[in-house]
Amino acid sequence: MHILVTNDDGVHAPGLLALAQAMRQIGQVTVFAPDRNWSASGHVKTLERPIRVSETVLADGTAAFMSDGAPSDCVALPLLGYVDKVDLVVSGINPYSNIGHDVTYSGTVTAAMEAVIAGVPGIAFSVASQDKPANVPADYGPAGEIARRVVESAIAAGLLEGVVLNVNIPYLSVEEIKGMLITRQGLRVYRDALDRRVDPRGRPYYWIGGEAPTGVNEEGTDVGALAAGYVSITPLQLDLTHYKAMEVLKSWDWK
Amino acid sequence: MHILVTNDDGVHAPGLLALAQAMRQIGQVTVFAPDRNWSASGHVKTLERPIRVSETVLADGTAAFMSDGAPSDCVALPLLGYVDKVDLVVSGINPYSNIGHDVTYSGTVTAAMEAVIAGVPGIAFSVASQDKPANVPADYGPAGEIARRVVESAIAAGLLEGVVLNVNIPYLSVEEIKGMLITRQGLRVYRDALDRRVDPRGRPYYWIGGEAPTGVNEEGTDVGALAAGYVSITPLQLDLTHYKAMEVLKSWDWK
Repeated sequence: MHILVTNDDGVHAPGLLALAQAMRQIGQVTVFAPDRNWSASGHVKTLERPIRVSETVLADGTAAFMSDGAPSDCVALPLLGYVDKVDLVVSGINPYSNIGHDVTYSGTVTAAMEAVIAGVPGIAFSVASQDKPANVPADYGPAGEIARRVVESAIAAGLLEGVVLNVNIPYLSVEEIKGMLITRQGLRVYRDALDRRVDPRGRPYYWIGGEAPTGVNEEGTDVGALAAGYVSITPLQLDLTHYKAMEVLKSWDWK
Repeated sequence: MHILVTNDDGVHAPGLLALAQAMRQIGQVTVFAPDRNWSASGHVKTLERPIRVSETVLADGTAAFMSDGAPSDCVALPLLGYVDKVDLVVSGINPYSNIGHDVTYSGTVTAAMEAVIAGVPGIAFSVASQDKPANVPADYGPAGEIARRVVESAIAAGLLEGVVLNVNIPYLSVEEIKGMLITRQGLRVYRDALDRRVDPRGRPYYWIGGEAPTGVNEEGTDVGALAAGYVSITPLQLDLTHYKAMEVLKSWDWK
């Protein structure tokens, strides 16, 4: 089993190290990740410029590839033949949860999507460490252990073609985590606000500000599972068609 | 009816001008678009840096806003209050079709998604001008006329909440276009290949190369409709849950 480990936070992010170490307990690991942070970057494919690849060393002394491409490029290049045949792509561990509409923005999730589009199973991992105090470094140990268990269970069951697994882990110890739930995508409540400021030269600039997003805490959803202390496993598809709306649209008078 | 017009190719792209002119026949128009090309940029939200907004003039002498943010930012800022209440967001006209898995990469589509997440109807327009000779400038006239008809029909029918309309227009004259079809997302066949080259200093660099993507020409899909000379209207949803896979995953042994 050859597992490609990537992320959208950059190759030296602590969450990637935890994921790589967890995957080494399962199979052969290649790390191929961006050389910088691409958070909230969406599904980017670099077609207008060439991509450089270089070698680096993770904090545990193991070798890794990094590139100046986007997270999806860091999946595309290995799968197009930069490394030997890849059996599974895992991305993360993202330091914040990716739930509800977050999945449409998330580089962590779109790296896993890129794998699935190329015909290789893809699993995205995120941990809700936004819940910890800001002045304490995040402990990715429990999330790494959960990632190992999820991947081992998925391999034992046979993995699924055409399905991205979006895994969100509560920021708790392994003992405190209540279990794993298969969930549907829930609803995010974004509380963005336009924050207009004026620079020292009198010219306006704008932040997308406001408060952190909340979620609709509903049973059966990713939001609800995380809030209740469970690992949330949401299968995502790449067919975005709104089939119910198709019937409505067919009844409209198109001129 | 206040219509926001944006795109991912940059404010001075000819497709945006055609779309803005078509929308002016329907209601009040505000153009707010990126100051540069963001093609294949995915769903990007700029949170780590402030955004600048400036004024510019389109080729027909009308005023427009441009920003150094991503396409989604060019929707978020107006909807957060930079301009008066917006009733509809349209993006495009993208010079290439956005069909099959393209929708997960497309900045044109994600701009419309950003609107729908914020509770405003969003429609993405693309024209398949990749079919024309490269040495002839694209004529966006027919696509602009089709965009006008689609938006007028959708407004007359009442628009739909929570649904993105992804509209792909064949590169044909209005008379040659056979009609409009409500479609589902089809399958793209990507033919990317890793293209390794060596720079003048002997260092390797990589292009994502290969041939242009094709599609599985199937009736009822966006790919099939375009190939047959029809306008393709695909409703897209923001819930990516793979509901069928949920049942399979629930039967797995999660440890």
